[in-house]
Amino acid sequence: MKNSNKKYTNNYKREVEKIDKKLSKLLQGKKPESLYEPCSYILQSGGKHLRAYLVLLSTKAVGGKFSQAYNAALSAEILHNFTLVHDDIMDNADKRRGRTTLHIKYDISTAILAGDSLIAEAYKNLLKDCKINATEILKTFNNSVIEVCEGQSLDKEFEVRKNVTIPEYKIMIRKKTGALIQMCCSIGGQLGGGTPEEIKALEKYGMNLGLAFQLKDDLLDIIGDAKDFGKSIGGDLVEGKKTFLLLKALELAKNEDKKALQKIILNNGIKRNQINKYKKLYEKLNVLEITEKEISKYTDMAIRALKSLKNEDIKKNLIWLANSLINRNK
Amino acid sequence: MKNSNKKYTNNYKREVEKIDKKLSKLLQGKKPESLYEPCSYILQSGGKHLRAYLVLLSTKAVGGKFSQAYNAALSAEILHNFTLVHDDIMDNADKRRGRTTLHIKYDISTAILAGDSLIAEAYKNLLKDCKINATEILKTFNNSVIEVCEGQSLDKEFEVRKNVTIPEYKIMIRKKTGALIQMCCSIGGQLGGGTPEEIKALEKYGMNLGLAFQLKDDLLDIIGDAKDFGKSIGGDLVEGKKTFLLLKALELAKNEDKKALQKIILNNGIKRNQINKYKKLYEKLNVLEITEKEISKYTDMAIRALKSLKNEDIKKNLIWLANSLINRNK
Repeated sequence: MKNSNKKYTNNYKREVEKIDKKLSKLLQGKKPESLYEPCSYILQSGGKHLRAYLVLLSTKAVGGKFSQAYNAALSAEILHNFTLVHDDIMDNADKRRGRTTLHIKYDISTAILAGDSLIAEAYKNLLKDCKINATEILKTFNNSVIEVCEGQSLDKEFEVRKNVTIPEYKIMIRKKTGALIQMCCSIGGQLGGGTPEEIKALEKYGMNLGLAFQLKDDLLDIIGDAKDFGKSIGGDLVEGKKTFLLLKALELAKNEDKKALQKIILNNGIKRNQINKYKKLYEKLNVLEITEKEISKYTDMAIRALKSLKNEDIKKNLIWLANSLINRNK
Repeated sequence: MKNSNKKYTNNYKREVEKIDKKLSKLLQGKKPESLYEPCSYILQSGGKHLRAYLVLLSTKAVGGKFSQAYNAALSAEILHNFTLVHDDIMDNADKRRGRTTLHIKYDISTAILAGDSLIAEAYKNLLKDCKINATEILKTFNNSVIEVCEGQSLDKEFEVRKNVTIPEYKIMIRKKTGALIQMCCSIGGQLGGGTPEEIKALEKYGMNLGLAFQLKDDLLDIIGDAKDFGKSIGGDLVEGKKTFLLLKALELAKNEDKKALQKIILNNGIKRNQINKYKKLYEKLNVLEITEKEISKYTDMAIRALKSLKNEDIKKNLIWLANSLINRNK
């Protein structure tokens, strides 16, 4: 087991490097520079390249080859970067992957336009790999873009609403995070020529992995190590973000505890020096453990979805990936 | 001739109404409202629907039917609306088609997101009509999105550059305005099953029509009637926009006149009460007439490109459309 884990870790690292290189070269030297330099800036900012890797693994999972899906893998990564650029404008974020965000480094107009053209670059790269079923693959891709926009819209809506429920939160993360990750698995499966059942299995894996991934992100905001995480700890509390942790805590808390939590929402966030107090409250309410369990639930669902896949090695690889993601500390 | 003109005018009006209805219904009742209400707001703001009409006419020009291309026609219009929404943010525009712009009525985040999802809606609708050649049609569509972004980027770049040339300006409008109109003719031709020659002819028509259209827009800014035009006259001068008129005037002017024109650029625009002074200077330098001739040149090239098309009625219809556009006063 340990040996195969090492193999998967090395495989993943190798593919991340490859994707990094391809992304770096993608828009090199293209003009106008005023457009493509900012685009390259975000494409060269690293990242886990989880989405690209999922496209590749999913293609192989159904009997295809990585080489059939590299452009599609890039496409998924480019699309993800578009969402980051536009989301960072909307969220007034100044850091991303430890670097200045695009709209701060340049300006808002440049960031809007860079994001727009990344969408088109994403379609362009996807089209390169669409030898069969182009219409179906593009529909899948396109639906995920729509879902991501809907998810981001709900996320912004929740910022100003006081009464968000956990089911509503889950719909939001399904759209904002799950849909794109599901799409990666789906187009990988489609490009590899998978059967409808195989594609469905991969989609289910992707959606549940996405949900686990987002919940882990919520959790890391409060239990992560600032150095590993790349953002400062407790940021969601400071911004008053209605994460799974906060909504769960609100559901469970009574009396004074509940009032304290409602203050986060009423005041649109807390001060930095209150983070520890709220972390302790989360611990008291058992919210951290409940979130861990929720993450495990979705990870298990993701892994169970893979049952029908025939390629045992890729199946193990996908399981390894799911476990690595929930055990990550950044 | 007069009778056929009336026929074409009526045909056009009828199709504009149809497209208006279809656009109004497109996102009706879709959720989340926070996303789709703003999208509907811009889609219901009217407009010439030139792009949609060009898709339809181009389909028929090669032997197809309007009914094969309505979704693609909507798609072109939706894509155009995306560019308007994002451009208005970048240009700080507060009015569009006589209504408050989207980012002013809502906010910048909403406008960014609405624009993003309009891109996806555009692809979605195009895909509905792609029964044949999906990959080629999508490539054509996608390339135009890339060109439009490049054109807008050049336009923003020119705002801060002092030394823009007329050839550079023309590259910019080819990308920003021409590419999308060319694409409409191209996908219409492709959807209708046109030959490569027919599609090329339509593309040439579209590009030249687009250039004539943009130059007319530049001209109307200075000679238009404010009520017809929907914007205030002289706006380009006030903003110091490097239009064809200003660049041509700079090329022709000498001594004091040249200094006066350079002031527009150095001061990033003029005051409202100076508009008339500069209009007179344009007249003195013959720039209005030169622009008219330039518009005629491109219109003639557009019309000549149609020569090889066989459907005489649609050919006349396209010629009528080109002439209506250059004779328009808004």
